[in-house]
Amino acid sequence: MKLYTYWRSSSAYRVRIALNLKGVEYESVPVHLVKDGGQQKSAEYLKINPQGLVPALIDGESVLRQSLAIIEYLDEKYPQPPLLPETAGARARVRGLAYLIADEIQPMNNLGVVQYLKHEAGLKQQQLDDWYRHWIARGFSALEQLLSASDQTGQFCHGETPGLADCCLVPQLYNARRYDCDLTAYPTITRIEKNCSRSSAFQKAAPENQPDAE
Amino acid sequence: MKLYTYWRSSSAYRVRIALNLKGVEYESVPVHLVKDGGQQKSAEYLKINPQGLVPALIDGESVLRQSLAIIEYLDEKYPQPPLLPETAGARARVRGLAYLIADEIQPMNNLGVVQYLKHEAGLKQQQLDDWYRHWIARGFSALEQLLSASDQTGQFCHGETPGLADCCLVPQLYNARRYDCDLTAYPTITRIEKNCSRSSAFQKAAPENQPDAE
Repeated sequence: MKLYTYWRSSSAYRVRIALNLKGVEYESVPVHLVKDGGQQKSAEYLKINPQGLVPALIDGESVLRQSLAIIEYLDEKYPQPPLLPETAGARARVRGLAYLIADEIQPMNNLGVVQYLKHEAGLKQQQLDDWYRHWIARGFSALEQLLSASDQTGQFCHGETPGLADCCLVPQLYNARRYDCDLTAYPTITRIEKNCSRSSAFQKAAPENQPDAE
Repeated sequence: MKLYTYWRSSSAYRVRIALNLKGVEYESVPVHLVKDGGQQKSAEYLKINPQGLVPALIDGESVLRQSLAIIEYLDEKYPQPPLLPETAGARARVRGLAYLIADEIQPMNNLGVVQYLKHEAGLKQQQLDDWYRHWIARGFSALEQLLSASDQTGQFCHGETPGLADCCLVPQLYNARRYDCDLTAYPTITRIEKNCSRSSAFQKAAPENQPDAE
């Protein structure tokens, strides 16, 4: 398998964690999101992903796009260890937590979105920082409530093994720290992160451990 | 089942389509996103969904949040007719198309996001319209390419029966029209929409046919 990735991309980070949890060997193909005006916008890369986004995963003849679609694919192709629990209700809980991060926080932090607000809408740096932190605080505050209120939360977002929601949570925390967000109001979130950080699958996937890390 | 919904919410619209495709009877509980300063922010509703977002689905003791998590749940609980194809590769394709809409277009059009840009960041109406249309054009342009280039695209986003991606596509088109987006560059997208619009499941789910439509 071949993963088009960028060390700091939180979506690529999610997929790297999942690949490592599954023990799948893969080749990293770095796509630099800033250099050359953004290599993800090159004609060559747009053939792989017309959205101009990382990650993309090549598996044989298949080209897979969108981090969460890739993780579900990996979970179906390599069922052990499972990244989703067994019952439909529990699976919906885990997907709900993952999508809270993927749909309600991460899109607003995305490089393209922040660049648009800066260059097209003319927002100043302070306004951009406020924007960034606002969506993290809003999302994490709901996530903290959902995690702390449920007895299904364990060492990880769901039970005692890491899964789909943890694959999204840890990269989002990396992003939050990059932008100096205050995380003291989220003890459950940071407790789960600490548990994840003990796993080599998460360690190997971390931005600073990527071949293209700067 | 009880669906907390708002007639114009595109996320609630997705779930209404899926419920109708599955033939599941449900009770609509309208949550007005504007009236009373936004009923989704009431203490009562925040107990159901701490994110303050519709939809939420109540099924017995379970409270389900996040439209795509709810649709996957419905697909697992009521397997017929399937909303995802059989093979992992094809499922990843459909999820990838759905997430392109759910993660790369819809969040930027979301009421809360547009309100933040207006009230906190001080964007003028023209800038808000530009923002809204930018993300629709960018997302639809990639989606059109992915759909038109694949022989897996049929009458619907994947093959000859409607599925998860179509549940996301039709509400996004409703949003695009609301904001006068030019759709002439997306013949495959609008062809699929036309096919969806012949199905009573899609018709019954349309905003104008909801009990709370204004």
